[in-house]
Amino acid sequence: MAEDTGIEALIELMARLPGLGPRSARRAVLALLGKRGQLMAPLAQAMAQVALNAKDCRVCGNIGLEDLCPICADPARATGEICVVEDVADLWALERAGVFKGRYHVLGGTLSALDAVGPEELGIPRLVRRVAEDGITEVILALAATVDGQTTAHYLADAIAETQTQVTTLAQGVPVGGELDYLDDGTIGAALRARRRL
Amino acid sequence: MAEDTGIEALIELMARLPGLGPRSARRAVLALLGKRGQLMAPLAQAMAQVALNAKDCRVCGNIGLEDLCPICADPARATGEICVVEDVADLWALERAGVFKGRYHVLGGTLSALDAVGPEELGIPRLVRRVAEDGITEVILALAATVDGQTTAHYLADAIAETQTQVTTLAQGVPVGGELDYLDDGTIGAALRARRRL
Repeated sequence: MAEDTGIEALIELMARLPGLGPRSARRAVLALLGKRGQLMAPLAQAMAQVALNAKDCRVCGNIGLEDLCPICADPARATGEICVVEDVADLWALERAGVFKGRYHVLGGTLSALDAVGPEELGIPRLVRRVAEDGITEVILALAATVDGQTTAHYLADAIAETQTQVTTLAQGVPVGGELDYLDDGTIGAALRARRRL
Repeated sequence: MAEDTGIEALIELMARLPGLGPRSARRAVLALLGKRGQLMAPLAQAMAQVALNAKDCRVCGNIGLEDLCPICADPARATGEICVVEDVADLWALERAGVFKGRYHVLGGTLSALDAVGPEELGIPRLVRRVAEDGITEVILALAATVDGQTTAHYLADAIAETQTQVTTLAQGVPVGGELDYLDDGTIGAALRARRRL
């Protein structure tokens, strides 16, 4: 075996990534071993660099190189709107869409009694202070349409209500390119209730 | 976005691993970003260390820390038997089984006209020289029971025949714990033809 080469330890670490188990981690490491110069060394270096340099933005929780992320540091984005998202992946998805010009608040999860995730863990008191102090006019809740996401959204709406700031949420309805035939009943019902004049 | 943080570059490198696509690579990187200290930095270090230290054994092609892998360097394993495997994963599988006490030859693939993989690329001339020079008494072909694997096995058997060394191959039959009902016809046929006296 390869017990003293560090390969077993590497496989164990790789197996802790989401989407990889012990077998697929071994496959990935074997592929890396076959491309030590072209892939393994650059990947290790890129990973070490990001691990060293990436910082959580102290205002919104986004990931950047400084204490303040590029979005919070951009004066052009001070529109008085804060979009609340579950994690950085959702922030990236919104940025890819390129339609939101305000700033963000990354919760880092949803409220969960089972996992002992309360308002403090998600930085909700910090968000409420930020809304009150920065003269925010609208908080847009862009949370998942799941039970956990919607529970968190309702808690947030109640918490922010004290600051008199408008709280909105993403519209539910038929996705672009979506065929009615393939949509679930809940989505069709939501789209029908939220119908608008053409 | 996170264009200047190196995160995009890291995702692109991760997406080149087998079993990961662009989306799952992004998910893996996000998980790493959430555990920069506990997982990302150690993983980067383990990977860099293996990339730097791992060496292909100059005799068998196994991976180790020296020019000669621990198996080739172990005098207790000089049994005169060489087991030919497709890649290091197969060598590891045989070592896990712990029944083979000889040495290995790692081909690094199978003969493939389509991918321009010929005998030279697999080190077959080197293997034939090794068999002749080291007084090898038996070459065990532990190749996959696929068309490519069996084509390679037949080529190897012909190439080694010149050295008068015995060439054997793994038995085909019912796997341990296998139920006949779930086995394919080819395996049942092979097991029946190779039946033995109890």
